[in-house]
Amino acid sequence: MSFDANRLQKKINATFKDHALLEQALTHRSIGQNNNERLEFLGDSILGFVVADEIYKRFPTVDEGIMSRLRAHLVNRDSLANVAKKLKLSDELVLGPGEMKSGGKHRASILSDAVEAIIGAIYKDKGLTEATSWVLAVFKEQLDFLSLETATKDPKTQLQEYLQGRGVAVPKYTVISTTGLDHDQQFKIECEVACLNEIVHATASSRKKAEQKAASKILESLL
Amino acid sequence: MSFDANRLQKKINATFKDHALLEQALTHRSIGQNNNERLEFLGDSILGFVVADEIYKRFPTVDEGIMSRLRAHLVNRDSLANVAKKLKLSDELVLGPGEMKSGGKHRASILSDAVEAIIGAIYKDKGLTEATSWVLAVFKEQLDFLSLETATKDPKTQLQEYLQGRGVAVPKYTVISTTGLDHDQQFKIECEVACLNEIVHATASSRKKAEQKAASKILESLL
Repeated sequence: MSFDANRLQKKINATFKDHALLEQALTHRSIGQNNNERLEFLGDSILGFVVADEIYKRFPTVDEGIMSRLRAHLVNRDSLANVAKKLKLSDELVLGPGEMKSGGKHRASILSDAVEAIIGAIYKDKGLTEATSWVLAVFKEQLDFLSLETATKDPKTQLQEYLQGRGVAVPKYTVISTTGLDHDQQFKIECEVACLNEIVHATASSRKKAEQKAASKILESLL
Repeated sequence: MSFDANRLQKKINATFKDHALLEQALTHRSIGQNNNERLEFLGDSILGFVVADEIYKRFPTVDEGIMSRLRAHLVNRDSLANVAKKLKLSDELVLGPGEMKSGGKHRASILSDAVEAIIGAIYKDKGLTEATSWVLAVFKEQLDFLSLETATKDPKTQLQEYLQGRGVAVPKYTVISTTGLDHDQQFKIECEVACLNEIVHATASSRKKAEQKAASKILESLL
């Protein structure tokens, strides 16, 4: 299918003054110049801000680590690709012949980039208020489903899952010192994530608690 | 020194309706509740957007990889800490006694977080237009100095410097295959960054070019 601005505008429920900008947003770099990478860069930053702002408002009491995790849960390649599928963007993508042949129009990275580029294009065409409204409408369902539960899996489990997902070694926890009397002991532990060259320390009233605290510190620096 | 909203407002050249919000922006987590971490999360996302937007406008022809590098050059812990020093924020920080004693007020991470939290606080107090103006004023010099040269150091050098800066092993480049006739050879190389569990391939008409291409791919996934 060739690019059809009207059909696409209906799908994404947004009208553009500048149809060329909209076409650019759907144009993959396999086409060459005038592709969507610059708009994607811009759209990604808008998306990051709009979602941060929304999480700040919706979760007025959670700390920054949880806010980061909530955002990462909402804004990631797969969730963006799902938005693209919901909007039926696959057939609107402008791809080079090689990408077309190899099934690029269903590839998560290409779909997710197109969504970010559309956000950038709406911003350039109509301003931030419109871009914000579009983001909030398109992510409404996910935002409404976002819950603290999403972000409150215990930190050790989360860290382990994160590292295993990247196929690298799991963290190593070592007790460095135990101080205080029996009924009031403090455990200082070290957590090392070799591949990140990251070592953190944490102290708590039990070994388990100290380990969770250390894992949480590392997660915060990752997300 | 105790917190003084008027003195601080003069230093940062911004007035607040809500002085408590400004105090919160300077309050480190070592104080306990009501610290600046949430505002920092918000400010970080605003800063990311404002700088992306500015780079998009100032460099209308560069590709996304270079835009990312330009932004990373401007927005990083050290550059933000420098902004904090220029604004003389050290004595305005509200720190717990432990942090105070250990020299926290000069620590780059604490200073840079405070700058991001101020951006978040201006946004909450006066809206995005004011927050944007503040960012552009405070980063004016760095933005004006930002040049393509910054972002166009050759990719192998950049990648090596990046990894060395984190104290981890430098990339390993291996020629995997050489194809074609003498006057038209193609070199396929593999670049492995062990600590990132990242392997990429690239092909070019010389070994050197292929290595640069591979380094560039990895950089783009990092920045």
